[in-house]
Amino acid sequence: MSSLALENRKQLLDRTAEILRSGTQMDIRNWVHSLYPAETAHILESLEAEHRAKIWAVIPPSVMGEILVEVNVEVGAGLLKITDRKDLIAACENMGSDSMVDLLHVLPEPLLSQVIETIGARNRSRFESALGYGEHTAGGLMSREVLTVRADVTLDVVARYLRKRGKIPPGTESLIVVDRTEQFRGILPLSQFLASDPHSKVADVMDSRGVAVLHSTPSRDVVRLFEQRKLLSLPVVADDGKVMGRIAIDDIVGVIREEADHSLMGMAGLTEGHDMFAPVVTSAKRRAVWLGINLLTAFLAAWVIDLFEDTIQQIVALAVLMPIVASMGGIAGSQTLTLVIRGLALQQVSAGNAISLLFKEVSVGLVNGLVWSAVVAGVAGFWFHDPHLGLLLGAAMMINLVCAALSGVAIPVVLDRLGVDPALAGGVLLTTVTDVVGFMAFLGLATLFLL
Amino acid sequence: MSSLALENRKQLLDRTAEILRSGTQMDIRNWVHSLYPAETAHILESLEAEHRAKIWAVIPPSVMGEILVEVNVEVGAGLLKITDRKDLIAACENMGSDSMVDLLHVLPEPLLSQVIETIGARNRSRFESALGYGEHTAGGLMSREVLTVRADVTLDVVARYLRKRGKIPPGTESLIVVDRTEQFRGILPLSQFLASDPHSKVADVMDSRGVAVLHSTPSRDVVRLFEQRKLLSLPVVADDGKVMGRIAIDDIVGVIREEADHSLMGMAGLTEGHDMFAPVVTSAKRRAVWLGINLLTAFLAAWVIDLFEDTIQQIVALAVLMPIVASMGGIAGSQTLTLVIRGLALQQVSAGNAISLLFKEVSVGLVNGLVWSAVVAGVAGFWFHDPHLGLLLGAAMMINLVCAALSGVAIPVVLDRLGVDPALAGGVLLTTVTDVVGFMAFLGLATLFLL
Repeated sequence: MSSLALENRKQLLDRTAEILRSGTQMDIRNWVHSLYPAETAHILESLEAEHRAKIWAVIPPSVMGEILVEVNVEVGAGLLKITDRKDLIAACENMGSDSMVDLLHVLPEPLLSQVIETIGARNRSRFESALGYGEHTAGGLMSREVLTVRADVTLDVVARYLRKRGKIPPGTESLIVVDRTEQFRGILPLSQFLASDPHSKVADVMDSRGVAVLHSTPSRDVVRLFEQRKLLSLPVVADDGKVMGRIAIDDIVGVIREEADHSLMGMAGLTEGHDMFAPVVTSAKRRAVWLGINLLTAFLAAWVIDLFEDTIQQIVALAVLMPIVASMGGIAGSQTLTLVIRGLALQQVSAGNAISLLFKEVSVGLVNGLVWSAVVAGVAGFWFHDPHLGLLLGAAMMINLVCAALSGVAIPVVLDRLGVDPALAGGVLLTTVTDVVGFMAFLGLATLFLL
Repeated sequence: MSSLALENRKQLLDRTAEILRSGTQMDIRNWVHSLYPAETAHILESLEAEHRAKIWAVIPPSVMGEILVEVNVEVGAGLLKITDRKDLIAACENMGSDSMVDLLHVLPEPLLSQVIETIGARNRSRFESALGYGEHTAGGLMSREVLTVRADVTLDVVARYLRKRGKIPPGTESLIVVDRTEQFRGILPLSQFLASDPHSKVADVMDSRGVAVLHSTPSRDVVRLFEQRKLLSLPVVADDGKVMGRIAIDDIVGVIREEADHSLMGMAGLTEGHDMFAPVVTSAKRRAVWLGINLLTAFLAAWVIDLFEDTIQQIVALAVLMPIVASMGGIAGSQTLTLVIRGLALQQVSAGNAISLLFKEVSVGLVNGLVWSAVVAGVAGFWFHDPHLGLLLGAAMMINLVCAALSGVAIPVVLDRLGVDPALAGGVLLTTVTDVVGFMAFLGLATLFLL
């Protein structure tokens, strides 16, 4: 049972750390050579720059390309800097055409031209046209290594052709069926192929419900199609209906991972192609922008508080209690915001149901507002021996929770409509609203009723 | 070109809304019948309860099961409540064994026993044993519909067997190779099968690098294996090495989606199996807990402020500026926290690199602390015509940003070690630290130096 896969990623990392600590150069080499490209990529992403270089140094050029495609953009850029140009070109020559295109997408400009030049005129035009597709379209996701068969031949003929060909691209689980003019006709799953009578015609056993997409289809829609129809692959056609390539599910898994990362990282002002061990200055620079934007929000909130300086001077308890209103609004709002951002990413929120969602979220805000306002009012009234203060605090929180629900739905929906990424900008805007409304409501009510 | 897939999810929703608004009962029925189960599931998840019931009413029992497996747990529970028991049992009889097991996992207890009873003694023992596997293990993910072939026969024999069998489970892209005693030996991709000489033995053409996993392997590790080795399927073996089943990539896509949702939703105190249109009271109840926990944090922060009541009484500007310190700490901390939570989820953070990460994050905190503290000190000093106040604010922010970086790494790593979900508990703990440290540092320094 040597073929049982027993190692998880953590064990890979632990073993790598051990070998880097106490192994010889030879141990490192043997260890790295025993890994799959994606495993090496995972390890590289999880190491500091110094260790990363040690591992990279023992990787043969023949697998460098596969690894560069697997690591995230930033880590890849770092590795390219420490890669010999000759090795890199050797790496490119060893790659399949779709991985090659993925890699070319990652290369920085001067290097890109050099590599394309070196690959030779034969392949160059092909890569250049492939690079024309956006990374986020079906054309950018597809591989050009496809097996097409004609609808009007028998399975027997296809079987002989495949055996003669000898090598079928790895991961092929279906053949693409075309007519005489290369137009897409359907899909012939290999499982169906094998279960059928060899004398039948392809047209009679193929899955004619099989679908294809245009090269310009956004990758988001491609992903949904894979998920909803449980596809293993999907043919891509040109505007004229001719088959151009094929998207395989393992590329889709990568896109799903990126999409999900995008929402999570975006909400903290980070990007998905993030190098965990980027140099301190690089990381600091990138995050500085986010902190700066949030600082503006914080100053705006401070300015609102400053409007009520006289009130606070007279009742210091207000300063003690005011962060509660703002903070509860922020929490409630971010729950709604997260729900809506996820709904938008999964295309579950649309014009048709946004209003219902708004009503529902505001109702939830009202219910929770009633409950927690009562609690807060009680605690604060008791704490400062002032029931009026407690009531004002409760009222302000109520107002803020309802506003939080309103903006938690409205902000991301409007941003999405405007073409701004709600995962990135939604949180800051929401906090601005809940801070300003929270301080304004509480201090304003206090100024009106307590002075 | 009728086979081009042109509709994305949003268009599905829009068309559904239109038909619900102005279509007849017949239109609704025809529309729903034209959909794939996962498409119907998507639509059901995106509708309010009332519309959901309208759609559910026209769904034939034969596809109900597939749809129930696709929708999230909460939506599924709601649909079960409005499903006729007879229909449900009919639904179960139409399902493949692995979908059936998925469905049984979803059913609430009284119904579960009834369904198992009705399925009949023949299948019952099989399902009962399958239900014994945790949902989060390889055993819980696998389907029992596998095609195994013996290593010592020729491809020709296998080909005849497959044709005789006639029906191969859909999505099959490889055969599992076993020896005489049903022990796992390797994998024979159908593509390899078709490209090889029919007289060769299975053992000679199979992929002997193919791996299998034990039924008890955590689903997290199974997912990593699929991603790292670009697998389309993975055999599952029992403790004695016998092949029990097979995990297909489309189930893995579901797990990846859930995992990613878990981090995103968890950080807002939500769960991944969330019904966007759950009844108001249900939603409010669930979120109330999260708000309550955060209220404790807010009161703790208020208590800290209260310690400095006298200081604030004398310098009201402190009340105006103090939220800035807390808020910037919270933002910086949540950036670090998000990075680490993602790293833990992807198994990129381990004991080996946690310390390096801590150093790096604290350094980033120091750099950004220096930059933004200077800005804040300048602005505040100018605003209140008091350079000392500005300096204190800057110093407090510096302290808080460093603490935020420390706790942004330490909190999730420690929680993970303790077996507590960092995505869920990390944010609250972090905010508690940044609020308390922020207010304490700023008001404390002011008490020491300004009075």
